[in-house]
Amino acid sequence: MSEDNQFLEHLRHSCAHLLAAAVMELYPEAKRTIGPAIENGFYYDFDFGEIKVSEDDLPRIEEKMRELVSSWQGFTRQEVDKAGALEYFSSNEYKQELINEFAEEGQTLSLYTSGSFTDLCRGGHTDKPSEELKHFKLLSLAGAYWRGSEKNKMLTRIYGTCFPTQEELEQHLQMLEEAKLRDHRKIGKEQELFFIDDMVGKGLVMWLPKGNIIKSEIERLALELEHKQGYVRVTTPHMAKEELFLTSGHLPYYKDGMYPAMVMDDGTYYLKAMNCPHHHRIYVHKKHSYRELPLRMAEYGTVYRNELSGTLAGLLRVRGLAMNDAHIYCRKDQIKDEFKKVMELIIHYFSLFKLENYWFRLSKWSPDHLEKYINQPENWQYAEGVLREVLEEMNVKFVEVDDEAAFYGPKVDVQFKSVIGREETMSTVQLDFAAKERFGLSYVDDSGAENNEVFVIHRAPLSTHERFTAFLIEHYAGAWPVWLSPVQIQLAPVSDKHVDAANELARELDELGIRVAVDDASETIGNKVRKAAGQKIPYVIVYGDKEMSGEDWMIRVRGEKDQLKMSKENFVERVLSEIRERKG
Amino acid sequence: MSEDNQFLEHLRHSCAHLLAAAVMELYPEAKRTIGPAIENGFYYDFDFGEIKVSEDDLPRIEEKMRELVSSWQGFTRQEVDKAGALEYFSSNEYKQELINEFAEEGQTLSLYTSGSFTDLCRGGHTDKPSEELKHFKLLSLAGAYWRGSEKNKMLTRIYGTCFPTQEELEQHLQMLEEAKLRDHRKIGKEQELFFIDDMVGKGLVMWLPKGNIIKSEIERLALELEHKQGYVRVTTPHMAKEELFLTSGHLPYYKDGMYPAMVMDDGTYYLKAMNCPHHHRIYVHKKHSYRELPLRMAEYGTVYRNELSGTLAGLLRVRGLAMNDAHIYCRKDQIKDEFKKVMELIIHYFSLFKLENYWFRLSKWSPDHLEKYINQPENWQYAEGVLREVLEEMNVKFVEVDDEAAFYGPKVDVQFKSVIGREETMSTVQLDFAAKERFGLSYVDDSGAENNEVFVIHRAPLSTHERFTAFLIEHYAGAWPVWLSPVQIQLAPVSDKHVDAANELARELDELGIRVAVDDASETIGNKVRKAAGQKIPYVIVYGDKEMSGEDWMIRVRGEKDQLKMSKENFVERVLSEIRERKG
Repeated sequence: MSEDNQFLEHLRHSCAHLLAAAVMELYPEAKRTIGPAIENGFYYDFDFGEIKVSEDDLPRIEEKMRELVSSWQGFTRQEVDKAGALEYFSSNEYKQELINEFAEEGQTLSLYTSGSFTDLCRGGHTDKPSEELKHFKLLSLAGAYWRGSEKNKMLTRIYGTCFPTQEELEQHLQMLEEAKLRDHRKIGKEQELFFIDDMVGKGLVMWLPKGNIIKSEIERLALELEHKQGYVRVTTPHMAKEELFLTSGHLPYYKDGMYPAMVMDDGTYYLKAMNCPHHHRIYVHKKHSYRELPLRMAEYGTVYRNELSGTLAGLLRVRGLAMNDAHIYCRKDQIKDEFKKVMELIIHYFSLFKLENYWFRLSKWSPDHLEKYINQPENWQYAEGVLREVLEEMNVKFVEVDDEAAFYGPKVDVQFKSVIGREETMSTVQLDFAAKERFGLSYVDDSGAENNEVFVIHRAPLSTHERFTAFLIEHYAGAWPVWLSPVQIQLAPVSDKHVDAANELARELDELGIRVAVDDASETIGNKVRKAAGQKIPYVIVYGDKEMSGEDWMIRVRGEKDQLKMSKENFVERVLSEIRERKG
Repeated sequence: MSEDNQFLEHLRHSCAHLLAAAVMELYPEAKRTIGPAIENGFYYDFDFGEIKVSEDDLPRIEEKMRELVSSWQGFTRQEVDKAGALEYFSSNEYKQELINEFAEEGQTLSLYTSGSFTDLCRGGHTDKPSEELKHFKLLSLAGAYWRGSEKNKMLTRIYGTCFPTQEELEQHLQMLEEAKLRDHRKIGKEQELFFIDDMVGKGLVMWLPKGNIIKSEIERLALELEHKQGYVRVTTPHMAKEELFLTSGHLPYYKDGMYPAMVMDDGTYYLKAMNCPHHHRIYVHKKHSYRELPLRMAEYGTVYRNELSGTLAGLLRVRGLAMNDAHIYCRKDQIKDEFKKVMELIIHYFSLFKLENYWFRLSKWSPDHLEKYINQPENWQYAEGVLREVLEEMNVKFVEVDDEAAFYGPKVDVQFKSVIGREETMSTVQLDFAAKERFGLSYVDDSGAENNEVFVIHRAPLSTHERFTAFLIEHYAGAWPVWLSPVQIQLAPVSDKHVDAANELARELDELGIRVAVDDASETIGNKVRKAAGQKIPYVIVYGDKEMSGEDWMIRVRGEKDQLKMSKENFVERVLSEIRERKG
């Protein structure tokens, strides 16, 4: 950790103490539990008992924090024995649980005090809280299980952040504001793209017609690009017998991540959490000649994973995941070419979506931890070598990390920095040496002999559809490029007498492949134009006598101040070419 | 029942006796159970105990039947009491179970004897078996649970058929042969369209790349036609919480047909067996103005139904069903137009697939059985009236049947006679008066008031994808029209030196949207042409020096004796237009 980072962590951890101190002053009945620094801030979890605390209370708590901190000159440390610690926290069962555990592990128990507030703590604070703890803000409140387990009591977590300077704090808060504006849940609702229905269940996305258009367009893009690269498509069921998942190893190793078993009259079934086992079964369904490899098998499949309901959020954490998934079955001498093709596909996608802040991370095995990896040293060396070669030849930005590979082979992660500064792994390309043995993958070589060295590349460059859509919503802030926009042109008839003509025009454009909506509400033109702008529709045309007469159209272009004056023919050709070329 | 039909049934039932008599002669240890006449024949179920009986034994049994029947002059009837019947069948627990049941119900027990064979029977035989029972054949052998329950022992069922004349028998056997040739399982395997994998599970179809092409083409057709009719598309999860299915009434009424519950940390989930509940939830997700109706909501959805594993067969009886499903939400005054549009869509589909032997069946309620139907007499009368009006106005063949409606509204079934003479219901259009109450469907009328009279039309004109594909395979006998054909043109390079040029040409045609395969095996041209013919590929071109030189091509057209001589340009245009226009 750099010195800067350590200072920031100490600052934020100290601020968590300050939060707890303020809460204990205001709510003496509350029980405090733990309060660590985290990325971008800190939190503290409280058991408020019967007292209702909401985000409305945060300003009051913040005020109390400012009041208290003036008397915090430093943190003093005091070592205590188990009995002393238990006595100090005699009315707090959470701290007692921690104390007993720490003591059992032989840890030294220490109390840290600042002002009149003392907490069980391992240390790591700022030296001069009254001077340094100034630029903080409480942000939000959420439920959190004690120690993260849904078997325990639900506590109240208060999130906050803290920076060394007011400028940095304000910059961060501004970014959070921007993130809120771009929030995929907010825009998803405003644009009627999707919703989560309590009666259907958490983490299960209901795609509304407009969201479904975006889904279909992305899927069509994938179909086109993959077809060019020689992929074939299959469709497999959303479930299988346990035999399949025992063969793949998902059972028992991944059982917790899978939906519960369904016992039928002919065996036990599970929903699939991944598409690979089904694809492998298609591969072995018939014999393959060396000429047929590489076999690139794609599916737009939906898988289901059992996440705790409390962790589910919007499109980012779901239980049902749709993805443009594929598995490439190839010979050892084809790994390099195939990996390169996948990389080209990824880069093509990203340039199309104008995504720029990304780099690759090559995760390798470690000869020091052989127990973690499948025992095929030659394949490891060979494969890592060719992956590196490709990354170098393609001249892309990449880092290498040791001891981070999957059990079954090296992988390349695509790392992203989103428009609001969040770093995340967008997708992963994995090489798999294990499937050939588990599933008996093989091919007949040119001498007629059976060869069992079939390598599998797992790839889903567009991540899951849910996650990618959330990412794109944020990326475009809801201003979809024309080809993805659920409505491409909105017609706003000047009065009721123009509605029929507008509908007629909409039908005409629709037949050309343009998505047009007519706003036939009995409202003012101003209102209609404002609504369309709120929906971030690329083109809005106020449709009245002039437009019907064949004169040039005046077109409102999203994000531009001046209207566009253009003949119908030229405008239609412009829109069609933007769709065709997926401009954006 | 007509006299003819009754005679046929008596004949076949008598033949079942004869079968049992022959079996008892050949396998005295076997236990006979029941043997009814069925459509197109008869069967008899036996418990053969440890003895293995296979289809190879059928000729021997048939021979014994012919031998025995010569002495069968007639059937004599004898009434017995329960004790007498039980004694007669003292070593047959199946018959004893039946006897006890019949006696409990107060039925008269009777034994029928012909020749030296006596069976427990209610009667219904031919008068002169020795003369009339001549034109029969044993067909096949299958497992069948005693009384149809998988909790009971698996018996051996022998199927046979019998006709009044040899000519009729032969005609029927020929039709069975034709059916075998067109069998969707046979062709599905030969053409590598799909397979059922034991490790994945029965009734769960794995669509191979070629089958997936057919699936996509049909789906694209549906998308195009529905888009023209103003449908919008949604995507919903494959499951929901039990709350949803309690609301829809699937629970508890349809529970046996659903997959078992999955208990999660936030409730109990079920896989969906139908798409309607999810669509209704999308409908109520927001308020609808009268202007927005009709709302036509479509989804290519997969549903899962729990059928007994023993009943699953090929594509015709499956557990996972994909369908181009839709629900139309409309006002009462829109029912007629919307129903008409659905009918037009159905007829359009059928003419495109050149399906001709179909008619409609209007299933109505019955005022005599009000308890079976939702209590909205006005809606029943109105709706049945408009459905009839449409059927009459469209001048289509239809019949009306009373007391066959669904609980929630009248329906129109599409009845089909397949190329091999089987009659079946292809699809159903259902009107639904109940959903509006169960789901609180409503709209805001032109006065701003909320109106709860939202009617739902359920429609899936292409049936399930599985069933429709099975039907099409049989219909085309595997000779797909060009637009549906997984491979449209096959190139057979004359020698290895022509392979590269053929691949180049394939790429060129592929970019134009034609599916081309190159047979690059090192085989004779004769072999390649024969293989392609076996695959029923529409066009085969032997590709050699002449074809590479730019001269006219010689094209082998499926089903035609003479080759087609055509320039490359004209041929490509011919194929493209066949695809575009979905000729077939």
